[in-house]
Amino acid sequence: MFRFRTAGRLLVAAVAISSQALAQMPQRQPTPNDTLKTPQVLPGNRVAIKIFAPKASEVMVSGDFLGGAKPLSLTKNEQGVWSVTTEPLKPDYYTYTLTVDGVRTADPKNPTIKQGISSLENVMVVTGNETAFEDNRPVPHGEVRQVWYQSGTLGMPRRMHVYTPPGYEKSSAKYPVFYLLHGGGDDDSGWNTIGRAGFILDNLIAAGKAKPMIVVMPNGSMPPPSTTGAPNQSQAMSRMRTLFADELLKDVMPLVEKSYRTLANRENRAIAGLSMGGFQTLDLTLGHPELFNYVGVFSSGFFGSSIDEAETTYARGLQDANFNKGKKLFWIEIGKDDFVMDANKKTLALLDKHQIKYQYRETDGGHTWINWRQYLNEFTPNLFR
Amino acid sequence: MFRFRTAGRLLVAAVAISSQALAQMPQRQPTPNDTLKTPQVLPGNRVAIKIFAPKASEVMVSGDFLGGAKPLSLTKNEQGVWSVTTEPLKPDYYTYTLTVDGVRTADPKNPTIKQGISSLENVMVVTGNETAFEDNRPVPHGEVRQVWYQSGTLGMPRRMHVYTPPGYEKSSAKYPVFYLLHGGGDDDSGWNTIGRAGFILDNLIAAGKAKPMIVVMPNGSMPPPSTTGAPNQSQAMSRMRTLFADELLKDVMPLVEKSYRTLANRENRAIAGLSMGGFQTLDLTLGHPELFNYVGVFSSGFFGSSIDEAETTYARGLQDANFNKGKKLFWIEIGKDDFVMDANKKTLALLDKHQIKYQYRETDGGHTWINWRQYLNEFTPNLFR
Repeated sequence: MFRFRTAGRLLVAAVAISSQALAQMPQRQPTPNDTLKTPQVLPGNRVAIKIFAPKASEVMVSGDFLGGAKPLSLTKNEQGVWSVTTEPLKPDYYTYTLTVDGVRTADPKNPTIKQGISSLENVMVVTGNETAFEDNRPVPHGEVRQVWYQSGTLGMPRRMHVYTPPGYEKSSAKYPVFYLLHGGGDDDSGWNTIGRAGFILDNLIAAGKAKPMIVVMPNGSMPPPSTTGAPNQSQAMSRMRTLFADELLKDVMPLVEKSYRTLANRENRAIAGLSMGGFQTLDLTLGHPELFNYVGVFSSGFFGSSIDEAETTYARGLQDANFNKGKKLFWIEIGKDDFVMDANKKTLALLDKHQIKYQYRETDGGHTWINWRQYLNEFTPNLFR
Repeated sequence: MFRFRTAGRLLVAAVAISSQALAQMPQRQPTPNDTLKTPQVLPGNRVAIKIFAPKASEVMVSGDFLGGAKPLSLTKNEQGVWSVTTEPLKPDYYTYTLTVDGVRTADPKNPTIKQGISSLENVMVVTGNETAFEDNRPVPHGEVRQVWYQSGTLGMPRRMHVYTPPGYEKSSAKYPVFYLLHGGGDDDSGWNTIGRAGFILDNLIAAGKAKPMIVVMPNGSMPPPSTTGAPNQSQAMSRMRTLFADELLKDVMPLVEKSYRTLANRENRAIAGLSMGGFQTLDLTLGHPELFNYVGVFSSGFFGSSIDEAETTYARGLQDANFNKGKKLFWIEIGKDDFVMDANKKTLALLDKHQIKYQYRETDGGHTWINWRQYLNEFTPNLFR
């Protein structure tokens, strides 16, 4: 692989090119793109975002760094470089998406991305004390494994990410398991990349704030139906939760308990998820109260019409006299600006109606990874105690 | 995370949105982008590549699927969708890069990318018998671990990918180790993603063609120098190979041998690399002939001025009377159209001069992942026998 860079820069590519080949390559005119540095954190934690797009008429940027505000317009200089500077940002990991004349454009100068099931976002970082909990620090690190398996439920290969804690390799001990579920649009890499889960766990464990544990991050995104004819929302959600529950219970969990040294009982099993993953968590918690003693629901609830059916669907769990006894933790957290607040409130009302006990926390902010990383950091120390 | 899709499609996003929120969202006009399917494999293994860019004047696509031919122009239809159809492609995994009015643009409808250290490329697949060796098949799978460590050599956190074979978790056996190095511009994820290394190993092992082994894929890209003042090419390469060798020998190898159940001797150690990784392989092989009995050099040689210094730099290795005896395999493979052929030929001449024995294979094609996956598939069965 080679890339031609202007002379005077470290010729990374030079080591992959014979000098003869180098002499043969046509001399390209340098452009502002060659030396463009973006995103660039400025004093005061503003971030300059730039893109060289000399022929474009309009460039916008959206992302969670905007805190819910509308997308920003970039302005072009005479060299064809578009730029905008953000407001001062609280130190954190942020995602952003550029749009150039209506075309979603991954920042050509920033290869750090968040992988989604149908699109990418770029990632930028402002570091500070506030990011200590999620930074890559010189503490013992666990390992995050990519694990492929043939799903009997779905009849296809599927992947999950599995975090094993520092010391796992050389130990003979067994560990509790935390099933951590992502949201709609993401895949099994989400929690460990934009969610910083591996680093958050490493830091908590190093500080003695969390027990060493295995964290299983399955793929919660289900393949679309093979039959034509669009299901309605209710059918879609029902299909999704049923497939997910089947895959988790029949494929993922048995594989995890067979492959790793786990303590395979309810006292040593936790489940939490964000958004769609929170919905899946509620589904598994109320559908299978005997499986998990520790439950976390982030930015979620029974969405849409599922709340109307929930009382019937989960009658057994809701009426289970031992439900509360069997839960060391049932934690429900959401941001006050979250657009799923309505579903969340209705879900709490349903739980209250059936005297299901839970801890509720309401934070600032909304439906963002900014909140979900914080929630993971707060929730995890409570597990397996 | 939510995405608004046209009614009648599976509302993946619906599960993350309360119906109230859904009702509140502004109705966006559907665009051709919503239903665009790309890349699309057509009968006869042509691939249609499309992008919705209604305001653009010029859209090009480059990539290894072109087999060295120049980039293709896409043409626009009245709806603003640009498209081009490739020649019939041999089944394989290919990379491509779109450029819209001079702006490198990751395909907004294809989230499958190859991660580089400074840029991304898109990946498209044409499957067939020819891809069986690298496909994700229903055979036992190993695990690919992302491992972070604090590098004493570089004074910073570094990451590597480590493949452990099927059965590793539940075994108590020790395994041989294959150090597999990527090229310039890539990182430690390269071999396992675009290089399909995990699947290639899974398939070889399942077929009994390769011994179960651990494959360590370190990050061969070194950070740029912290001092200003650009080094010349010779200094840059010398710095790079020295840093890499130090990090491999002082950080990576001891960590691997401490963390995993390895057979830690020369008979059970292999090293191979492509391009810059091949250069690093040559450097370590001639610099440390006592470490590896199995060596592979893909599409590489002593680049640029390093060939002139090699006789001195590697005097000890080149003159080692036991060098050949200590090598079960010294395999050098390159495509006949490879632009590093000149460096390769000079390297072979140097080895010949010192009666260093090696197996040389020349294939079709050039400096591409297309070749490197094939080379890995051919090379690996020879290891540890």
